[in-house]
Amino acid sequence: MADYKAPVRDMSFVVNEVLRFDELRETLGYADATSDTIDAVFEEAGKLASEVVHPLNQIGDAEGATLNDGVVTLPDGFKNAFAQYQEAGWGGLHADEAFGGMGMPHLVAVLVDEMFSSANHSWYMYASLTHGAVGAIQTWGTDEQKATYLPKMATCEWTGTMNLTEPHAGTDLGLLKTRAEPNGDGSYSITGTKIFISCGEHEMSENIVHLVLAKLPDAPAGTKGISMFIVPKYLVNADGSLGERNALKCGALEHKMGIKASATCVMNYDGATGYLIGAEHGGLKAMFTMMNSARLGVGVEGLAKAALAYQYAAAYSKERLQGRALTGAQEPDKPADTILVHPDVRKMLLTIRSFVEGGRMLAGYCAMMLDVRHKHPDEDTRTRADNVVSLLTPVIKAFLTDEGFRGANLGMQCYGGHGYISEWGAEQIARDARICMMYEGTNGVQAMDLVGRKLFWNGGLGLKAYFSELGETLDAVSAREDLKDVTDRVKAAFDSLQEATQYLTEQAGTAPNNLGSAATDYLRLFAVTAIGTMWLRAAATAQDALNGGTSEKAFYGTKPVLARFFAEQYVAEHSSLLSRVKSGSDSIMALEAEAF
Amino acid sequence: MADYKAPVRDMSFVVNEVLRFDELRETLGYADATSDTIDAVFEEAGKLASEVVHPLNQIGDAEGATLNDGVVTLPDGFKNAFAQYQEAGWGGLHADEAFGGMGMPHLVAVLVDEMFSSANHSWYMYASLTHGAVGAIQTWGTDEQKATYLPKMATCEWTGTMNLTEPHAGTDLGLLKTRAEPNGDGSYSITGTKIFISCGEHEMSENIVHLVLAKLPDAPAGTKGISMFIVPKYLVNADGSLGERNALKCGALEHKMGIKASATCVMNYDGATGYLIGAEHGGLKAMFTMMNSARLGVGVEGLAKAALAYQYAAAYSKERLQGRALTGAQEPDKPADTILVHPDVRKMLLTIRSFVEGGRMLAGYCAMMLDVRHKHPDEDTRTRADNVVSLLTPVIKAFLTDEGFRGANLGMQCYGGHGYISEWGAEQIARDARICMMYEGTNGVQAMDLVGRKLFWNGGLGLKAYFSELGETLDAVSAREDLKDVTDRVKAAFDSLQEATQYLTEQAGTAPNNLGSAATDYLRLFAVTAIGTMWLRAAATAQDALNGGTSEKAFYGTKPVLARFFAEQYVAEHSSLLSRVKSGSDSIMALEAEAF
Repeated sequence: MADYKAPVRDMSFVVNEVLRFDELRETLGYADATSDTIDAVFEEAGKLASEVVHPLNQIGDAEGATLNDGVVTLPDGFKNAFAQYQEAGWGGLHADEAFGGMGMPHLVAVLVDEMFSSANHSWYMYASLTHGAVGAIQTWGTDEQKATYLPKMATCEWTGTMNLTEPHAGTDLGLLKTRAEPNGDGSYSITGTKIFISCGEHEMSENIVHLVLAKLPDAPAGTKGISMFIVPKYLVNADGSLGERNALKCGALEHKMGIKASATCVMNYDGATGYLIGAEHGGLKAMFTMMNSARLGVGVEGLAKAALAYQYAAAYSKERLQGRALTGAQEPDKPADTILVHPDVRKMLLTIRSFVEGGRMLAGYCAMMLDVRHKHPDEDTRTRADNVVSLLTPVIKAFLTDEGFRGANLGMQCYGGHGYISEWGAEQIARDARICMMYEGTNGVQAMDLVGRKLFWNGGLGLKAYFSELGETLDAVSAREDLKDVTDRVKAAFDSLQEATQYLTEQAGTAPNNLGSAATDYLRLFAVTAIGTMWLRAAATAQDALNGGTSEKAFYGTKPVLARFFAEQYVAEHSSLLSRVKSGSDSIMALEAEAF
Repeated sequence: MADYKAPVRDMSFVVNEVLRFDELRETLGYADATSDTIDAVFEEAGKLASEVVHPLNQIGDAEGATLNDGVVTLPDGFKNAFAQYQEAGWGGLHADEAFGGMGMPHLVAVLVDEMFSSANHSWYMYASLTHGAVGAIQTWGTDEQKATYLPKMATCEWTGTMNLTEPHAGTDLGLLKTRAEPNGDGSYSITGTKIFISCGEHEMSENIVHLVLAKLPDAPAGTKGISMFIVPKYLVNADGSLGERNALKCGALEHKMGIKASATCVMNYDGATGYLIGAEHGGLKAMFTMMNSARLGVGVEGLAKAALAYQYAAAYSKERLQGRALTGAQEPDKPADTILVHPDVRKMLLTIRSFVEGGRMLAGYCAMMLDVRHKHPDEDTRTRADNVVSLLTPVIKAFLTDEGFRGANLGMQCYGGHGYISEWGAEQIARDARICMMYEGTNGVQAMDLVGRKLFWNGGLGLKAYFSELGETLDAVSAREDLKDVTDRVKAAFDSLQEATQYLTEQAGTAPNNLGSAATDYLRLFAVTAIGTMWLRAAATAQDALNGGTSEKAFYGTKPVLARFFAEQYVAEHSSLLSRVKSGSDSIMALEAEAF
């Protein structure tokens, strides 16, 4: 197994130089989140991720989570590493200072998420799901609920889960059957079976706080009748100490392709005591307010797998001797050249890397817009940011996980046959990455969310705002000769994207299946254009630093090359994607169900 | 786990209606391979594959192959199913009748390969590697060697393996270190370690005949010094009975991502007795003569995974209720519609299916050209076929395995989160499919073989012959209004392919890295054009049957729809692929090794 080194220099570049967070810092009230502080966070979190968490990645896969008598056991070292994570305060990086968190911006938190998810996807889920639950309780909890749960959860002393899915109800939550009966004392009695509950049972934390979707007795049918409940593993006494065990149990663990040390639980609620959070029948709304950051988080998980795969594959490609360069032997004194001399190997590596660095910029941008949405003093600016975030979220979730999986596979491919062998660690990355395309809403669902809802959300406010921002970036670089080739390619893609958007707008009212048929291709066209534009910003920044005689020539020198590569390889897809978008749904809808 | 049903009707369509094998049958001397006989072969082999072999697929994955004291054990049922396969004579389907085979054409054998590989990839490797070894001994063995080994191997009573790879020598076989010392009696003493030896040790057959690449003491350096040896697990007595155990042993099994019941062995040769096959230092040539059919076979393995994934995913999509159609509820009396109503789900299914059926036609075409190469009485026709096969082989190996893996993943994706759970069987297909992109030469190596060798092979004879055939097919359908849309799209792709070929021809002498950079994209452009053209043939055939009032309206009716879908989705990639091909290697070669 190779090493993982947290990409702290690149993360600093994204935050401080490309996105220039510091220009917004005071306005958003993040007085403490100076560039220096952020760099220090990346450095220290990166150390823990690289030195403590990543070495547990392979054993996590080999041993997995096991269930005995309702108790889930994780591999040796998992709990100790989690304790170090808690103690260093990383659990509360983004949580409110009022509850013991560090109160750092989303932008920083999301990049730290990337590190820990690269280091060990399974292990980090115990924390990342908790962050999601903290967000829900912060937004929807009563003061008492906040006081009871958040101080413990913000630090990950207690962890959290989301309980949505049932065997017959995944995407279609309206079908769910779990019931909540009032106990008469303000609490409810929860009964039902939930599946696919990540980290539903384990011994990493003292208590596990489940957020459970269920239906009240008088609930209207469908998604309008769903309520959300806090259902802790151990009931909490009035003094905050842990009381008796609640009537809930992990009935089984799923056997699955990857993330084997993340316990995927069947959870049985047998009259468990729960507490309504948010409004009656307001459960779906409560879930949806967390969805943007949760889906952004899953996108980053996908990206993180490609980031790890890149490091593994680059290290291997620089070591492995096999064959000779097409232009003649590069190291004639050795029995063969390294495989890095081969254009095809370089192309695979650069495909991963240009995606990872570009995707990181887009995810960072979206996270910063989340900060703007929450913290900016101007309401119009907040609204604009909210709409942009809503628009970009499905794009990021789907594209970053599709390409995260592809990147993991390209990394494997650099190893040749060795990539298929477990001991090298490359194939685990691909298996772990695969889940990101499916959970938190499949990527097909994301694409439908984009073309069916987000494009037209609030009269297209987010779309107009974001497209005008893309146009501004393109205008800003259009006079630069040193980026002309890249700019021309991204402009052509933006033209295709606008044409595709116009086409979908025309279809929306009359031919909804044409939206459904085009959805995944449109989303990809959107993503390569958006990331191509981010690469222009990065390349311009780096080129300026090079022109200014920076001492970090090697670092900045990669950026214009990667920008060009991204344009040549990814952005070049735009013409085919546009053709696919506009081919309609006739051939897709033509066959009867029996013909499949 | 779902069922597998061998696609016998479609295979018959490919052989008898699209490729019209019957028109060549007499010329090639396949008197017995009438349409009726071929259909009966598909029917009977399909039964064994579906009813006996496929039910062992999941247990094979769960239990895998295990090694104890040098003995490899396979899951219950594997040996019994193999015995049924032997007894029914399927092992010798394509082998010479002189050695007890059925002497059926490659075309038929390759489609039967698809069935068994769909049914159970791991299990079928014990047979398919034997077929490869039989081919080598038929071509290169002495009469005595043929008489000793072929009657047993043609029926799979004895199985065979290929021993190429060593830890430091994969693609670059010139680096291999295994030695062969003459014993003075005509035999050799083989010493060395081979890795990644599929089916290197097991109890499915009485004897295992290893074909081992090694170097003689006076061998020149590099690939010119490689010889091939027959090294049986049990030495064979003069009367054909089994003698003493040879000095070779399975030292370990690899733990790997998939094909877990295929024993991937580290083989230790410790002065094992071997027999030279072919010329001294002629081992690589001997290997290469088998390469075309072996690589075609791996391409079909990839395709076979997508074929299985399609059946699983289609069955699931017709059952699973979730959400409502975009155009309104289709089954208002049920709690939800099936997910097959969603265009995105249909698109995933049709992507797999249009690839599988189109890839099957191309693989069948190539297999038929192998038959022409071996059996046609006219030498020019044989030479032409040989060149076309050489050209198409890397295209088929790489594209069918890339898309086989993609198809397996699209199949998983139709399941949503359930796709990630082992019990459904969908994720196993993806893990099994993944190896095909790497073994028998990685897909990057295939692409380099195409652009670096095959395009210019024999003065471009294969390319000219194949392109003129594509042109003829396009001309033949160009007057048809009913296929105009598809024809226009395929013609545009053929234009792009010709432009890309011209570009590569210009670069070949002066800028070899531009070939290396373009290789994988060029291969894909070639493949979508080739398969698009096959789809035109199929659609025309089917449309004629429909116009003629066929009773199989449902069957034929799918073909024009799938042809159009393939053109809209796959063939549409041509413009982007051409752009990528022509973007050159500047950005790919720009960075120093340290920058990776």
